[in-house]
Amino acid sequence: MNSPVPDLHRFADRLGRWISESGPEGDVVVTSRVRLARNVEGFPFVSRLSPERAVELSGSLQPVLTGLDLSAETHWVDILGASPVLRLLLRERHLVSRDLAPSAEERPAQPGRAVLFTHDESVSVMVNEEDHLRVQAMSAGFSVEAALLMARAVDQRIEARLRFAHTPQYGYLTCCPTNVGTGLRASVMLHLPALSLVQSERDKVFTAASRTGLAVRGLYGEGSRAFGDFYQVSNQVTLGRSEEQLVAEISEIVPAIVRFERSVRSALLEDNRAGLVDRVSRSYGVLLTSRSMPTGEALAHLSNLRLGLYLGLWSQGSLETLNRVRVQIQRGHIQALQPKQEEGPLLDSNERDRLRAAFLRQVLAAR
Amino acid sequence: MNSPVPDLHRFADRLGRWISESGPEGDVVVTSRVRLARNVEGFPFVSRLSPERAVELSGSLQPVLTGLDLSAETHWVDILGASPVLRLLLRERHLVSRDLAPSAEERPAQPGRAVLFTHDESVSVMVNEEDHLRVQAMSAGFSVEAALLMARAVDQRIEARLRFAHTPQYGYLTCCPTNVGTGLRASVMLHLPALSLVQSERDKVFTAASRTGLAVRGLYGEGSRAFGDFYQVSNQVTLGRSEEQLVAEISEIVPAIVRFERSVRSALLEDNRAGLVDRVSRSYGVLLTSRSMPTGEALAHLSNLRLGLYLGLWSQGSLETLNRVRVQIQRGHIQALQPKQEEGPLLDSNERDRLRAAFLRQVLAAR
Repeated sequence: MNSPVPDLHRFADRLGRWISESGPEGDVVVTSRVRLARNVEGFPFVSRLSPERAVELSGSLQPVLTGLDLSAETHWVDILGASPVLRLLLRERHLVSRDLAPSAEERPAQPGRAVLFTHDESVSVMVNEEDHLRVQAMSAGFSVEAALLMARAVDQRIEARLRFAHTPQYGYLTCCPTNVGTGLRASVMLHLPALSLVQSERDKVFTAASRTGLAVRGLYGEGSRAFGDFYQVSNQVTLGRSEEQLVAEISEIVPAIVRFERSVRSALLEDNRAGLVDRVSRSYGVLLTSRSMPTGEALAHLSNLRLGLYLGLWSQGSLETLNRVRVQIQRGHIQALQPKQEEGPLLDSNERDRLRAAFLRQVLAAR
Repeated sequence: MNSPVPDLHRFADRLGRWISESGPEGDVVVTSRVRLARNVEGFPFVSRLSPERAVELSGSLQPVLTGLDLSAETHWVDILGASPVLRLLLRERHLVSRDLAPSAEERPAQPGRAVLFTHDESVSVMVNEEDHLRVQAMSAGFSVEAALLMARAVDQRIEARLRFAHTPQYGYLTCCPTNVGTGLRASVMLHLPALSLVQSERDKVFTAASRTGLAVRGLYGEGSRAFGDFYQVSNQVTLGRSEEQLVAEISEIVPAIVRFERSVRSALLEDNRAGLVDRVSRSYGVLLTSRSMPTGEALAHLSNLRLGLYLGLWSQGSLETLNRVRVQIQRGHIQALQPKQEEGPLLDSNERDRLRAAFLRQVLAAR
């Protein structure tokens, strides 16, 4: 059954399980994701697609995608008709990209952009982002293979109903040449608080990863700053390799990073237990007492709590809570979690910082 | 009755009332102090006093000072025989100067240096500091006249028993020419958190004060940094004016500073109540949760609590508690407040920071 997103307040409150649950190697690998880029034969690439043809394509894809019966309930959201808060929510849930759903201050949204996602949010399909279709599958912890299985299953169901642009020589054709071939990008989100504290070690790891053709970037924040010590590792090259090869590459390097992060954590604990205890305890204190809390600072304090939890220095909350909070402190969620603010204009940043502080005090207060 | 300082642990724990009590204008003026510089006829100034003569002078002053019966119980401490912790305690209580009681890392203590103080610590007499005698009287809040009355009473009792260096033309002779005449310095300790937040306003006040011949300096910290926003205002010129004139000068400018500080507090509250609430609340959070706390940082957070208390934004403690804590977080007190550490060598700074954090958590925890 397909249905619109009914109630933004409830949507903001309940998160997909793949976000809040802790999966394999969950103390380092937060989530895994696979996306497949596909284009529909007979339509120009999105970069050359007129607004009319984009709407036409989206209109013809909607019944196909909603008819796939991917889960008991799926949601189709036309971006142009979505409220500013809903656009932010979808982005903060990793269901759509900034490109697909820009906020008003960035650039006007374009017609014919949409997303379909399953009720549990483990699968989403963006329509007319950089490619006609971007199939995404997400799962908790280190589980790239599971994500690949899900993404391929969705992809095959779609391919059974329409023709993708494909040649025997190149494989799947995509708007950007870096995606040609499998159209696959596999990525994992890592939490690396210890490596972030010892930047020389972090830089070693990142250099090694990029030598094997993987890209590493901070997940939040601009440039090299990674608020909250969250990083994304993903493959770069898709042409000339099979999907399995690509997933195998990332599956080799990630366990090495996991081991390295864990060994630095142990070393920090041994060398400066008192300093870590102080750091974790202060962050908890600030989160429980601040009355105004910007996102970047919140992520930094929450990163200290996660590290404290891993090392047995903090026990007033669970990893599931921290996973949820990581998403819900973002501005769309903070606004939608307030009564009667879901459909209004975006709040100003002072007001958001105040509400974020109140949210954190409430969620993190010891029970 | 004269007695030695019996138990450093108890001494560190109980403070003189003039420190912990809140006096007139106690939300801005923490304490008032008057000191009189005096020298004994027939002995060279301290700068030219041999160690033997210093010991001789101190030996002859001890019975005079302890015989004054300034209070039911007085304490005489010979600095050379005092433990490193006791020297720090006396300095942190403002009973002696750094010059009289240097710590081992600064320079060796010299023979013939001593201090007499009353049990309630409102009066102290340093022996062989810059002058043979420095009579100090201290009282809570804005009460320079009361301090002057006390200091003069002590001074007159001493003068009844020995001859001070004095000429009709210059008045009392002192080692440094800036003290010649009355030998009086009057000073007040001010807490100026609002003016410290608005530095342009603070600089205006300080410039005005120095034009009227008063000196302003930060009480803690080096150079222009005033940890905890505590400042001392004192008179500079002593020659050619009466004691009453000197006290009148400071008594004119201080109420103006008090009014100015209060008006900036009100303006801050009106302009940015939310920001102040956040600042106060976070400082309380950090003080209740930190596991390692350097003195400078502690003073900054405590200053925020004081400001919160003045403005009705913090109510989990009293001004008396904050007055006590201001003195007791210093390193000598932190060490002496521990069991069995009073007579040992000075603790290292990591250990002190850890103990300071524990002390603050305990004292400030809501009851």
